[in-house]
Amino acid sequence: MTLTVVGSIAFDAVETPSGSRDRLLGGSAVHFALASSQFAPTRVVGPVGDDFGEQEYAILRNRGVLTDDVEHVPGGKTFFWAGRYHRDINHRDTLQTDLNVFEDFQPKLSPASRDAEVLFLGNIQPDLQRDVREQCRAVKFVAMDSMNLWIDIAHDALLETIALVDCLLLNDSELKQLTDEPNIVRAARKALELGPRVVIAKQGEYGSAMITRDGYFGLTAYPTTDIVEPTGAGDSFAGGLMGYVAGEDGNTDDATLRRAMAYGTACASFNVEGFGSERLYELDRAEIDARVAELEAISRF
Amino acid sequence: MTLTVVGSIAFDAVETPSGSRDRLLGGSAVHFALASSQFAPTRVVGPVGDDFGEQEYAILRNRGVLTDDVEHVPGGKTFFWAGRYHRDINHRDTLQTDLNVFEDFQPKLSPASRDAEVLFLGNIQPDLQRDVREQCRAVKFVAMDSMNLWIDIAHDALLETIALVDCLLLNDSELKQLTDEPNIVRAARKALELGPRVVIAKQGEYGSAMITRDGYFGLTAYPTTDIVEPTGAGDSFAGGLMGYVAGEDGNTDDATLRRAMAYGTACASFNVEGFGSERLYELDRAEIDARVAELEAISRF
Repeated sequence: MTLTVVGSIAFDAVETPSGSRDRLLGGSAVHFALASSQFAPTRVVGPVGDDFGEQEYAILRNRGVLTDDVEHVPGGKTFFWAGRYHRDINHRDTLQTDLNVFEDFQPKLSPASRDAEVLFLGNIQPDLQRDVREQCRAVKFVAMDSMNLWIDIAHDALLETIALVDCLLLNDSELKQLTDEPNIVRAARKALELGPRVVIAKQGEYGSAMITRDGYFGLTAYPTTDIVEPTGAGDSFAGGLMGYVAGEDGNTDDATLRRAMAYGTACASFNVEGFGSERLYELDRAEIDARVAELEAISRF
Repeated sequence: MTLTVVGSIAFDAVETPSGSRDRLLGGSAVHFALASSQFAPTRVVGPVGDDFGEQEYAILRNRGVLTDDVEHVPGGKTFFWAGRYHRDINHRDTLQTDLNVFEDFQPKLSPASRDAEVLFLGNIQPDLQRDVREQCRAVKFVAMDSMNLWIDIAHDALLETIALVDCLLLNDSELKQLTDEPNIVRAARKALELGPRVVIAKQGEYGSAMITRDGYFGLTAYPTTDIVEPTGAGDSFAGGLMGYVAGEDGNTDDATLRRAMAYGTACASFNVEGFGSERLYELDRAEIDARVAELEAISRF
């Protein structure tokens, strides 16, 4: 089943205690698509500038990502983010954010992208997310991400967008902030009242939880010790999850969504084991399957 | 199999956003024993003062807890702790700690307590824990708890005690502090090098993880929304866990320890649903079993 993702395409500069890189291919749509393309053909919608060249396209296309809807803005520069990770790699400081071509981005979807049956709205301004949502009329399952910034400065727009999706995917702390509720299960239940039928709380090193009107699923993180750089972990989690759903013909019953979360978890665990999404470039499906089998073994009792 | 616990016996005063109590039966050994006694006869070792009366003994004995080793210190006052919980109930401030009879506590175990085959060293000064450990010569499985205070002020004594136990049970943050390692899996592996063959990281609202030399198990928390007051959650977790092990004839293979953690999780979830350990007073085993079955269902994929 076809899958479309809208989100940022970026160059990232990162500093970590074990090394730094000044130009990594990044952005939510990129991390997502490098994971989701393992499972289903994925179309990326997002803008790039003149500095985005053949090398970057090649990385995406090598993984089968469909780049027809990557919009080149002549004279523009690609979105740029710089951050520094602490010794506890769960903490980071943003050093610089240059929106560049993202500042005037108006998503224009090709007919093929609009026909997507599975859609992921990466973390961008909620009005843009809604715009994309409304262009995709054939869609069967839509999920979205967001962040504390939009909860703060675009609250109403965010609520309007959340009302239009099937699945809301947020960090634990964002879910608590959105609903002003410190208990995560209560927070997720409140978020369900905003419209979605599935809420997934990303809990970083602790794993993730899925809350529906009549169900709950808690999944441990993959216990990797080889964390190099975690940028994009949440997006590759979403990519594995949504890719798996698209690969399963858009099935979103409870059992499929649980397994999809395991695939998301596996993809995220690979993502953090290298700078940027490098670890995903040459990954094969068998490696992901093996990690999902491991997850099953370490969470069974 | 017989189970002995040494730890604090206390009166607690707590304030929460939904109410307060000024005299709750508390302390690590109490929370532990009210859970563990569901599974195996449990002997409590710890001191109390003149203010500890028949009503308190009755609560313990009603649940089958063996109180022969509760040491009454004539003229003394029972350990007292007061704390205030925030709206986010995962955060609290300690308002008052009066050691009272605990100040000069020297554990004296009866022959029956010394014969315990399963032993839990609740969070007390590590030299006292070691003293108890050394008195119990027939023991087959020993676990211990500790806290940031002892990591700070009694580091060497703590390391000596850790070297003598089979299982170290700490909060996530304490494990990271003890080993000076921010990655939880690496921290647990470092802790294994100190002697124990099992390390269990308590992760509060996120669940728990067990790390052994060749294995890993991650377990979600029970998703309760009815958290009244969480004091003693970690001790009732330990009680369910160690009680289950004692009830299974001291078996500590991987499968038994995994199931023991599920029992610990279930006991902790009941503990937090009332003030103090009140929710454990009349709890029956069938309620615990039902919650373990639920845990199995919500963590399977």
